Amino acid sequence: MTVPGTARTLVAQPLTATAFAPFGTLIDTAQVAPRPMNAGMAQRFHDLAAIEVTGDGGRVVVGLVEAQPYPLPLRLTLVERHPLGAQAFVPLNAAPFLVVVCPDDGGRPGRPQAFVTSPHQGVCYARNTWHSVLTPFGAAQDFVVIDRGGPGVNLEEYVFEQPWTVTLPARD
Amino acid sequence: MTVPGTARTLVAQPLTATAFAPFGTLIDTAQVAPRPMNAGMAQRFHDLAAIEVTGDGGRVVVGLVEAQPYPLPLRLTLVERHPLGAQAFVPLNAAPFLVVVCPDDGGRPGRPQAFVTSPHQGVCYARNTWHSVLTPFGAAQDFVVIDRGGPGVNLEEYVFEQPWTVTLPARD
Repeated sequence: MTVPGTARTLVAQPLTATAFAPFGTLIDTAQVAPRPMNAGMAQRFHDLAAIEVTGDGGRVVVGLVEAQPYPLPLRLTLVERHPLGAQAFVPLNAAPFLVVVCPDDGGRPGRPQAFVTSPHQGVCYARNTWHSVLTPFGAAQDFVVIDRGGPGVNLEEYVFEQPWTVTLPARD
Repeated sequence: MTVPGTARTLVAQPLTATAFAPFGTLIDTAQVAPRPMNAGMAQRFHDLAAIEVTGDGGRVVVGLVEAQPYPLPLRLTLVERHPLGAQAFVPLNAAPFLVVVCPDDGGRPGRPQAFVTSPHQGVCYARNTWHSVLTPFGAAQDFVVIDRGGPGVNLEEYVFEQPWTVTLPARD
């Protein structure tokens, strides 16, 4: 049995804009006041995240991802980052998913921080920010992904010497 | 009663990549073969649409839109276009929505073409392409929107002298 709070165990915290700010941007209707558009027939939550891309030939592309669920507690063995561009994911259903990010520590990931999203929250990982792969749990989940397309090496992976364990918070 | 086929009545056709090609790009898992990622835990349908932006200070931004439904048959009074960037919409549920686009005819919209999406299809309107506003029907619908943020005038609207009527195809 995994005991939350041990050295290599993380308890995922609710994802908030403030907590996530060092790592990127929360894509969430709670972040801005909506603007009416289309003669009042729509409410737009504008400019929740900008997709930075760098490097020759870089462009912003839209894709779709079908992600399989991971068992909990999560055994986190790897994080990755994208040196040439930001990467945003917006879920196509209301299920929460896990988000694990790490500060950079001299070119390697520092201590991970784990979050669990609220329904309909998406995330934009800032360029070159260490993060876990898409981590649904409970059921498969589809996402819109918005990130950099184009030439260049835009993936760096880091495998932890020892895995981290990520748990959900205990329910009240 | 509206009779399909009259001069200013359009019967929405199923949206296909070929039919939509003059106006932009379909965002749909059927368009490309998926690539495995994350050690096989996810399938990625990559680079379904690129988000072109032009103009000083232009950047690609991600937003969310909550759109109210329109009654059918649709009374189409207006189309718009964005001279400085493409604009993509991906629905957050499986409901179809209407997509109306027009070829340009000397700076004004030509005869509209109406489409109805299949479940989970999204669209990317090419830069400067005349299109209807977001048009769900039956129920409100939420969308991810990916388009241009930044300074500059990026909206042109055209009001038809006489509205068009858009109907769904008759069911088999």
